Amino acid sequence: MSISQPYLLFLGDVTDPLAAKTARGIHQWRPNSCVGQLRLTDETVSLGLDEMSLQQAQELGAKTLVIGTANAGGVIPKSWQKTLIAAAEMGYEIASGMHQRLSDITPLKTLQEEGQTRLHDVRHYDGTLEVGSGKKRSGKRLLTIGTDCSVGKMFTALAIEKALQQRDVDAQFKATGQTGILVQGSGISIDAVVADFISGAVEAVSPEFTDHEWDIIEGQGSLFNPSFAGVSMGLLHGAQPDAMVLCHEVGRQHIRHLPHAKLPSIEETIAANQQAARLTNPNAKVVGICLNTSSIDEEDARELCAQWSEEYQIPVTDPVRFSVDSIIDNLLAK
Amino acid sequence: MSISQPYLLFLGDVTDPLAAKTARGIHQWRPNSCVGQLRLTDETVSLGLDEMSLQQAQELGAKTLVIGTANAGGVIPKSWQKTLIAAAEMGYEIASGMHQRLSDITPLKTLQEEGQTRLHDVRHYDGTLEVGSGKKRSGKRLLTIGTDCSVGKMFTALAIEKALQQRDVDAQFKATGQTGILVQGSGISIDAVVADFISGAVEAVSPEFTDHEWDIIEGQGSLFNPSFAGVSMGLLHGAQPDAMVLCHEVGRQHIRHLPHAKLPSIEETIAANQQAARLTNPNAKVVGICLNTSSIDEEDARELCAQWSEEYQIPVTDPVRFSVDSIIDNLLAK
Repeated sequence: MSISQPYLLFLGDVTDPLAAKTARGIHQWRPNSCVGQLRLTDETVSLGLDEMSLQQAQELGAKTLVIGTANAGGVIPKSWQKTLIAAAEMGYEIASGMHQRLSDITPLKTLQEEGQTRLHDVRHYDGTLEVGSGKKRSGKRLLTIGTDCSVGKMFTALAIEKALQQRDVDAQFKATGQTGILVQGSGISIDAVVADFISGAVEAVSPEFTDHEWDIIEGQGSLFNPSFAGVSMGLLHGAQPDAMVLCHEVGRQHIRHLPHAKLPSIEETIAANQQAARLTNPNAKVVGICLNTSSIDEEDARELCAQWSEEYQIPVTDPVRFSVDSIIDNLLAK
Repeated sequence: MSISQPYLLFLGDVTDPLAAKTARGIHQWRPNSCVGQLRLTDETVSLGLDEMSLQQAQELGAKTLVIGTANAGGVIPKSWQKTLIAAAEMGYEIASGMHQRLSDITPLKTLQEEGQTRLHDVRHYDGTLEVGSGKKRSGKRLLTIGTDCSVGKMFTALAIEKALQQRDVDAQFKATGQTGILVQGSGISIDAVVADFISGAVEAVSPEFTDHEWDIIEGQGSLFNPSFAGVSMGLLHGAQPDAMVLCHEVGRQHIRHLPHAKLPSIEETIAANQQAARLTNPNAKVVGICLNTSSIDEEDARELCAQWSEEYQIPVTDPVRFSVDSIIDNLLAK
């Protein structure tokens, strides 16, 4: 999957600021890839970008119209179709993280068949894959892992990529989930591939390389999430990480959506991931912990990070509040 | 997926006895579900069943024509299509474990749409699934696990089902792979579902039950196979087994198809599976080991089983040579 940049971010007629999370993430991490925003109504949420028409954005170089919003059913509203079809007719690519496929909209499908547009349904994967081999590949890899889903694995990976680049270390983010794919313009939604190909898909996302220094691979799920641990396991084996960064949300009471399922301890999460990762990389090691401390105040968060750094003998930080510098120091000192 | 029995086993024009492994497995475990065999030529391999036409088999009650052979490409040969189409026109269901879908053959697809037949492509799964929850379900479950792929997990599960039934313990085999599904007439090919739904698919294959005593769930892959461990992990969590039986092939030098990947030790296989299984069943325990000892002679095999029983303090047997009685004794003594 390779999505042409820069983007025009499409916000539809969404009024819930949370529903524009994807668009906000893209703009946060790739501001230079966002030419502007397109809203259908005055009530639509705004990212504060330049407001523009399809025509204006295309004149400024926009190549892809990105649906940067989510909704409950994942269905593309009828009221958006006119704009999407107009964009496709103008030669825009269209990218979407919705459940419903763009190609389910007949005029879009036809325009793609005619070569007028390319449709990117990043939540799905239709390409051909090989099964993973676990064979050692050249290049260094860092994978973000977690105690659960939605604990900051994408954010952390992007923060580490940025911090490494700021120190002139050539690092590339590798996306395994829908928002990550839209940010990067490439990647595979690992949880959408056929089960046999999980590790093979990760091997395809981060193949052998010698032209840069690090691949920073976005993790998914958790070995301790009873719904999705298979995905996390295959991801771990396919990534064959040299380094792992553990992500955790302070104060989370149980596994997301599953009140009967306990969160694992930090110790067991580190141990289980290191043990499993060593199947394909005997040197795999957790080099830092990133906490989402938004549920406590900054002073308490600072203290907790210091305490845990002491306890686990690795850097512990909140990437939003305190940066990932301590983890980068540890990574580069290895 | 629910395939009507009894079957007429279709052997096509296959001359390699190994290529009829699936048909042989079905007949071995469900002789009463096999009305007879249909061969296209005199040179075709034979299972020694009664030879019959579609007409004759239907008069004897056959409901489904089962493609009981495999070939390298997984493509359904042109020379078989006449027979398959004739069967569908007569109202037979058709079941196949080939890669190519039956519904790719237009006349079969049409007959299915007209309600004349039902097509079962057991290597694929198109149904709707929910993500797993890991919630405790009623009923006792045994899962076969392995040091690798193709070490006897289906055979062992079926042997355990049979041995339990012979002791009047009501046990039901639950299939997770193509041959197992054809044997049982139901199940889901776990490695063919979308990665997000691995454990959910197993929860669907072995739902809550109170009407019998044990579900005997067919395992897949190995936590130590770098290609497929994600499938095995999700299967383990979805199965939430009370008991596990470890399968291993004596003399295997490395992970199948991967000369660079070492086989795990018995100790680490038991430890890793028990640890992971306890996420959804804190009482999960390995209760026996089934060896494929075909590479050594019977006397050596007997000695090896005795030695390992001593070493691992659980029953160790070759289910083909020595039955699974010792494991059943241990299971029922729990």
